[in-house]
Amino acid sequence: MAHPLYTGSVPVFRKMLTALDAILTRTENHIAEKKLEPEAFLQARLFPDMFTFVRQVQIACDFAKSVPARLSGAEVPSYEDNERTFADLHARIRKTLELTAGIEEAKFAGAENREIVLRPGTPRERRFAGGEAYLFAYGIPQFFFHVATAYALLRHNGVDLGKMDYMGER
Amino acid sequence: MAHPLYTGSVPVFRKMLTALDAILTRTENHIAEKKLEPEAFLQARLFPDMFTFVRQVQIACDFAKSVPARLSGAEVPSYEDNERTFADLHARIRKTLELTAGIEEAKFAGAENREIVLRPGTPRERRFAGGEAYLFAYGIPQFFFHVATAYALLRHNGVDLGKMDYMGER
Repeated sequence: MAHPLYTGSVPVFRKMLTALDAILTRTENHIAEKKLEPEAFLQARLFPDMFTFVRQVQIACDFAKSVPARLSGAEVPSYEDNERTFADLHARIRKTLELTAGIEEAKFAGAENREIVLRPGTPRERRFAGGEAYLFAYGIPQFFFHVATAYALLRHNGVDLGKMDYMGER
Repeated sequence: MAHPLYTGSVPVFRKMLTALDAILTRTENHIAEKKLEPEAFLQARLFPDMFTFVRQVQIACDFAKSVPARLSGAEVPSYEDNERTFADLHARIRKTLELTAGIEEAKFAGAENREIVLRPGTPRERRFAGGEAYLFAYGIPQFFFHVATAYALLRHNGVDLGKMDYMGER
């Protein structure tokens, strides 16, 4: 069996982001067919104090890059968060897929015993005693929150998608 | 390290369902304060061809019971799907928490090599070569889809929740 904290993170995030990339394309096609404004989707929110679609996709990518980086003891790559268009979001996903493709499974050795500290030295510092708590009680729920919310926003706005699209199985 | 397919399923599902249970209570309080109709939330959908809130909670519980059962080689407990009220949904979550509390981690031994077959003998039969593919490429994405969509439905309808509620960290 491969290292379970690798198996439970990198391929999971990559599968879902690949699906999200295809969902973006389906949404662009929908916008073109119906002659709609891309901004209506990119800036959509489910409620005024929730994040926009753009931000949901950005944060999904953030967890996909930061969780495996922390588990494997690497620096978390920094993104500029300057995406404004569907093309920009495709690029961010593509960059995240490339980054995660380069993560060696061997680097996960000992991840179960690696203490992980988020926002160290700040009032919002958060410590995880090991990689399992960090991945399963934090990283996975957070990642899926943003992927599922991005999907929900598009469905709510009438893009013809199904759960097969979310699962990357179409 | 505990068996990773146990660690990646039972405690994850239990944490999220415990959070969902508290979210239901917050929603009931919101409904009482504002003198709203419970049905407006229970039957809410993000789009007409999506499932209602009740169904999202039911299915989240389904994955929380079926995924660990299949991984541990047990029968999948059957539910009647007759929930109609918030009290019913609390009961379904409570039943699922009790069921999953009783799953012994030792039963996960060899789960990584256990072939898992969904809907056997039907046109929609689906085979997974082992427990890892079943959990990480299927069970986890499906479970979180329904939990996050349930949360999104409540947020969209104005219940004052935050991601801390979804994460069970309030």
